[in-house]
Amino acid sequence: MMHTKILASQDIGTIVKSIGINALLDALVEQLEGAFKSLDTQKANIPPRSGIHCQNPDLGLLEWMPASINQGRASLKIVGYHPTNPSKRKLPTILSSIGLFDTLSGHMECLLDGTFATALRTGAMSAIASKHMFSSDEPITLGIIGCGAQSVTQTHALSRIFKIKRILAYDTVPTASQSLGKRVSFSNVQVTPVSESELHTLLTTSDILCTCTSADPGSGPLFSDFENKPTLHINAVGSDFPTKIELPLPLLRRAFVCPDFKQQAKAEGECQQLGDHEIHTELTELLNTSELQSQSKNSLSVFDSTGHAYADYVTGSLILDYAKEMNLGTDIEVEHSARPT
Amino acid sequence: MMHTKILASQDIGTIVKSIGINALLDALVEQLEGAFKSLDTQKANIPPRSGIHCQNPDLGLLEWMPASINQGRASLKIVGYHPTNPSKRKLPTILSSIGLFDTLSGHMECLLDGTFATALRTGAMSAIASKHMFSSDEPITLGIIGCGAQSVTQTHALSRIFKIKRILAYDTVPTASQSLGKRVSFSNVQVTPVSESELHTLLTTSDILCTCTSADPGSGPLFSDFENKPTLHINAVGSDFPTKIELPLPLLRRAFVCPDFKQQAKAEGECQQLGDHEIHTELTELLNTSELQSQSKNSLSVFDSTGHAYADYVTGSLILDYAKEMNLGTDIEVEHSARPT
Repeated sequence: MMHTKILASQDIGTIVKSIGINALLDALVEQLEGAFKSLDTQKANIPPRSGIHCQNPDLGLLEWMPASINQGRASLKIVGYHPTNPSKRKLPTILSSIGLFDTLSGHMECLLDGTFATALRTGAMSAIASKHMFSSDEPITLGIIGCGAQSVTQTHALSRIFKIKRILAYDTVPTASQSLGKRVSFSNVQVTPVSESELHTLLTTSDILCTCTSADPGSGPLFSDFENKPTLHINAVGSDFPTKIELPLPLLRRAFVCPDFKQQAKAEGECQQLGDHEIHTELTELLNTSELQSQSKNSLSVFDSTGHAYADYVTGSLILDYAKEMNLGTDIEVEHSARPT
Repeated sequence: MMHTKILASQDIGTIVKSIGINALLDALVEQLEGAFKSLDTQKANIPPRSGIHCQNPDLGLLEWMPASINQGRASLKIVGYHPTNPSKRKLPTILSSIGLFDTLSGHMECLLDGTFATALRTGAMSAIASKHMFSSDEPITLGIIGCGAQSVTQTHALSRIFKIKRILAYDTVPTASQSLGKRVSFSNVQVTPVSESELHTLLTTSDILCTCTSADPGSGPLFSDFENKPTLHINAVGSDFPTKIELPLPLLRRAFVCPDFKQQAKAEGECQQLGDHEIHTELTELLNTSELQSQSKNSLSVFDSTGHAYADYVTGSLILDYAKEMNLGTDIEVEHSARPT
């Protein structure tokens, strides 16, 4: 009998309440940093994500993000991207789940929600990149462009690494930037919503900038090049689809650029705009090379975060570990595993 | 609240007991035939399957087979292929599950076992192809080469379409061919196990032949070309991997060849051996063209069955329909679906 642990969304809520969201995020940052630092591409099978269109009648997308580590586990995150969900079905654009597999036998060990895990790991990945690409002895100004679900975990994760003096937040929908302060109040950071006319001030005064918009493919960049603080670090989170970009090319060309996953970033991230020689490193190399970290810290830098399947693997595994510890979830024999005669 | 119905392997057992395996198979054959006959490639998104290797330390494979029909559903079958499972873990080589998705929202409606569904649909697909590629007024001789799990559903499905006079069964492992009779006793067909020296008799006297071996990639073909009955029909089921083939090229070149999924069959099936001009049609076209059916019925014919994701979609959907009718399964809110503020 091989059981699959099915974690309900409420089970993950129980874990968050029990561990505390700060401790959970700190644990995840630590695990992800270790995992990506020691990621051996010879031992990993992580193809870029793939997907299929679904038209019913609005256009949607169903994507899958696989990762497998030799001698380790395999994971497959399934992501539904349906832009009309909020307006037509009172559902989030993204509905997602993660399957975790035993690579010894191929058995599905666990199925869990992928939406919370994605938000958490995307915040954690920006925190890790920022920690190694930017440094400051002073409290910093954080700029947030795009105040949806991702902005909460971006703000939260960065607040665990840096002392934040103030946050300037912009969104094309003013109610979104106005509500961000309330949504991140657990982090004890003050958020100042800014209007479009103040966007330039946000850009030029930020020490760290997070772009996490849902800009339409083909509509970017979000702004023109600007006179940035000399060591501005940007976490470019929104770009994750062919022709979807947030940053202007002149700025990218001036910057030290590090994608999470080079091959995928060249297809779907800010790196779509760049030639190979304009991409300076990749996260794993950065974490292992202090010279690259110094170079980044002393210049304008961009972390091109397209979303890495291995981050889902690590995050899903951490949540499963907590669930096992706390005896959560429903164990069901999904796969028929009687041995053939 | 969006719930995912998790079907336990036992729930599917309850469906089989309640409906009866004959009625279930007949219903599936009817649904699959209708579905493939009306399959509109303009409305379907069905890429060839893909996968990743898992080494822990034995080599395994984790594959995913997606299918989406516009205005319909989407499905993703996940298949673990771990050849050392039987000897090392007392588990079947294949462990599999199927996710069914609502294409309106991307929500995962159901997760169910994929192993039973795969065996059932593979049998049903051979029955459908055989029905349209072969005809006989007389009871037939059925040859089976490879007496593992697939041989049971092949035999069963064909026994629902044709009157079977006798079955000759061969396997490199004699206990497998000797036990097939017992394993298909519910079909009321008599099985004669044959030894290697009688394989030639099996080949030359069969009206329909099913090859469903787990021959190693690179080791095929299973036999040399032979003097077949003029309208022999072959269901080539085992070939589903690059360099894995069962049939000799001279035989293929003499035959009317119809793959289930041409693009995939050219990569993984018997059609690997053929040029485009040597592949006569594809299942959907065959089902819609009586001239092609006549041509096949009057000659040696081969159905190259590599396994079609749309067959998993249809089979999973049928099982889900029965489960809903019978109020089976465990409904769990897996995906976090609170709308972001």
